[in-house]
Amino acid sequence: VTLETTVDAIRPADETAMAAAAELQARLTKPAGSLGALEELSVRLAGLAGVCPPPMPEPATVAVFAGDHGVHAQGVTPWPQEVTAQMVANFVAGGAVVNAFARQAGADVMVIDVGVSIPLFGGANLLDANVRRGTRDMTAEPALTRDEARDAVEVGISVADQLVAAGAKCLLTGDMGIANTTPAAALIAVFTGAAPAAVTGRGTGIDDATLLHKTSVIAAALDRHAPDPADPLGVLAAVGGLEHAALAGFILGAAAHRVPVIIDGVIAASAALAAAAFAPDAVAAMVAGHRSAEPGASVALAHLGLEPLLDLGMRLGEGSGAVLALPVVASAVRVLHEVATFDSAGVSEK
Amino acid sequence: VTLETTVDAIRPADETAMAAAAELQARLTKPAGSLGALEELSVRLAGLAGVCPPPMPEPATVAVFAGDHGVHAQGVTPWPQEVTAQMVANFVAGGAVVNAFARQAGADVMVIDVGVSIPLFGGANLLDANVRRGTRDMTAEPALTRDEARDAVEVGISVADQLVAAGAKCLLTGDMGIANTTPAAALIAVFTGAAPAAVTGRGTGIDDATLLHKTSVIAAALDRHAPDPADPLGVLAAVGGLEHAALAGFILGAAAHRVPVIIDGVIAASAALAAAAFAPDAVAAMVAGHRSAEPGASVALAHLGLEPLLDLGMRLGEGSGAVLALPVVASAVRVLHEVATFDSAGVSEK
Repeated sequence: VTLETTVDAIRPADETAMAAAAELQARLTKPAGSLGALEELSVRLAGLAGVCPPPMPEPATVAVFAGDHGVHAQGVTPWPQEVTAQMVANFVAGGAVVNAFARQAGADVMVIDVGVSIPLFGGANLLDANVRRGTRDMTAEPALTRDEARDAVEVGISVADQLVAAGAKCLLTGDMGIANTTPAAALIAVFTGAAPAAVTGRGTGIDDATLLHKTSVIAAALDRHAPDPADPLGVLAAVGGLEHAALAGFILGAAAHRVPVIIDGVIAASAALAAAAFAPDAVAAMVAGHRSAEPGASVALAHLGLEPLLDLGMRLGEGSGAVLALPVVASAVRVLHEVATFDSAGVSEK
Repeated sequence: VTLETTVDAIRPADETAMAAAAELQARLTKPAGSLGALEELSVRLAGLAGVCPPPMPEPATVAVFAGDHGVHAQGVTPWPQEVTAQMVANFVAGGAVVNAFARQAGADVMVIDVGVSIPLFGGANLLDANVRRGTRDMTAEPALTRDEARDAVEVGISVADQLVAAGAKCLLTGDMGIANTTPAAALIAVFTGAAPAAVTGRGTGIDDATLLHKTSVIAAALDRHAPDPADPLGVLAAVGGLEHAALAGFILGAAAHRVPVIIDGVIAASAALAAAAFAPDAVAAMVAGHRSAEPGASVALAHLGLEPLLDLGMRLGEGSGAVLALPVVASAVRVLHEVATFDSAGVSEK
């Protein structure tokens, strides 16, 4: 499956199914509107699926795309690059936060090496799809060639295809990559037009001096490449990351299958902007799981017109915020499947 | 078990267990602080349990206390009073939103008739603990006698005791009672000192004229009774409801057993204020599930120093917001049980 065929398969939301969901919500045994954002979410998911009620978003899988970054050499984070591979091993062993959250939510965890700099040992839930052992340093040259960026996007599409073929009714974005908030901020700046300082955050928790340096690194890379937001593959190649590109493809794949994809934090939000640049209708498949503490995430979600479900001051990544939101998404859909109507329950109306 | 013995059993949070949880959070494989509010929550729950990690909050039960209100005669809501009993039947049949959410979260639903005006048919999960068939009209006389208020509080304590004895590791507050946002607003005004207009909301969705009328009804009742916030039983008797009083006891019971209790919306928040007036240390057991759209809920939570986990514009009651927050609470605790440390996972630190 190619990028082009996937983009071509993405359709707008189904207005008829959305109207049916809104009409059903009004007949359920609760005051109109009393479920707030969950009612709107249920209507959106009906529109995505093209049917009311939409399928329950179970089973669900969080796909954790891992990659390394040449820009790490610029000192944008105090964490050593080897932590990417070490955390992949932690995911495979089930010891990370995303694993704990996934066990709670009943989701599966799949880990994809799309760009880790160190060869990884296998595991039942680890997919070797390495396109390149880390990106190049975006401050010196494009992070990826266009072909590498396309390959990474198509890894993400392929993972979405495989998971949906295996029965997944909901996909969740996960990521791991030391220094990967730097390309994420660069992508968000390009696609939204925001200034680097407005979208660059502290990532894992850098100090003021490192934050200023990180912002200047991003600004320099944008100056050097002047990426064109109308050319998303070119943007991903210039200042992206392999996991960012793969996540963009993963989101496009979900949208092509009309399966909801829960967006995690700033990495996923930057990939969502790329996906929307490839196919604006892909936004119909996106559910913003939470508001990351990273400022770029909020800028990206606002640009996409998405309101996040959770806002807990989290900034971990890994897919943790997406998995935490899964029960909320499932609850919103479950209402349409299971709640009685005023008629069926014999409840008087006002 | 009496109100007094329950209040006497409530102890402050355990500082040693809280320190242990904070120290453990710092060793887990994630950047310090990256789980935001979930880290603070895990520390609070360790303090409540007196052990680190605290027990997982499963199994969990939402107790839906139902009652009717004499103040309904004042026209504070367009919904007929019979809807309380009809919705109890809906809960027992499993057809309400709280049932759907509870199935998603893996929680049990128990319904307690503590004050419904109509005799109810039984059901496996329906407890008949009716203290009085609805309160009196607070604008004309006290809603309850002190003895009735005490009986209702002790119903709630007894339900908490029974659920904990049966193995519940987390209790969730639920409520049903047409017109019950009116006594809730009155209770919040008394315990926080806020003006009626600042804490009175649209409940199930009343129009501007009814909102003004509802506010004036509450103001008139407060003028008539001038309840003393230092006498919570007197406040509950003057302007409370049977489900509000029972919920106050339910919260006290949870606190006495050092079991977390997830507070739902404005009804539960008003009861939480009463519980805190009986026993200030009971706040350690409270977890605010969500920020209800009812303005009084936010005033009450701020007074208690509680930050809600979810903020989805919901205003349904029934315990729906508490149940929706349960997976978040469980995820916060699960991190302390299951996530690897930097040492155990062989992950480098910065």
